[in-house]
Amino acid sequence: MNEETPLFRQIKEEIEEQIVDGRLGEDERVPSTTELVQFYRINHVTAARGINLLVDQGILYKKRGIGVFVAPGAREALLEARRRDFPARFLEPLLREAARLNIPGQQMLAQLRDLGEDIGYDL
Amino acid sequence: MNEETPLFRQIKEEIEEQIVDGRLGEDERVPSTTELVQFYRINHVTAARGINLLVDQGILYKKRGIGVFVAPGAREALLEARRRDFPARFLEPLLREAARLNIPGQQMLAQLRDLGEDIGYDL
Repeated sequence: MNEETPLFRQIKEEIEEQIVDGRLGEDERVPSTTELVQFYRINHVTAARGINLLVDQGILYKKRGIGVFVAPGAREALLEARRRDFPARFLEPLLREAARLNIPGQQMLAQLRDLGEDIGYDL
Repeated sequence: MNEETPLFRQIKEEIEEQIVDGRLGEDERVPSTTELVQFYRINHVTAARGINLLVDQGILYKKRGIGVFVAPGAREALLEARRRDFPARFLEPLLREAARLNIPGQQMLAQLRDLGEDIGYDL
């Protein structure tokens, strides 16, 4: 795990990632805090904090005494939130940096198209 | 300052930012660790660590007993490093996220052009 993001947020983001890419399906059980503690060697409070953030957001739900599960619609909700945040998180920072570095627009677009081809995203 | 990046790195990035945008010119004196300690209310070790990273990279230089200064060529070196890192830091993450979210390429480009217009960067 990287050293810059707080651990509880890394736990949250790892679970989100698994939901978005389908490794964790709806109504599937999420690793328990005990399992997270053992796997990531973090403390119990940190693991619970990451999980509870997602419960508060309705992405996960708890069944008392059984465990924590992926909420129905969680994947679509996460995708929707990311689509909403996409301009502010990706487009604007890119444009500001390109402008700051005086990278010509046409050059940047050509590079974007080339890299897009490499990863199979057509522009 | 934000809470996710270690303080010494925030100090380093703030100084870099001032050099890149010209607030700190070449051979100009950089705030001393004592001034950074007072301004940001951080400890002395953190401030010194941020400064020393930039000294090690040749962006700043020390004059014993006088202070720390911006090295000649520092701005161009920082710009060059950022241009080199631009694809990996900005273009690739953008493309991967757009692909993951199934945002159509043409829609993404149109949004990029619109936002570019807003900030005065022509595509």
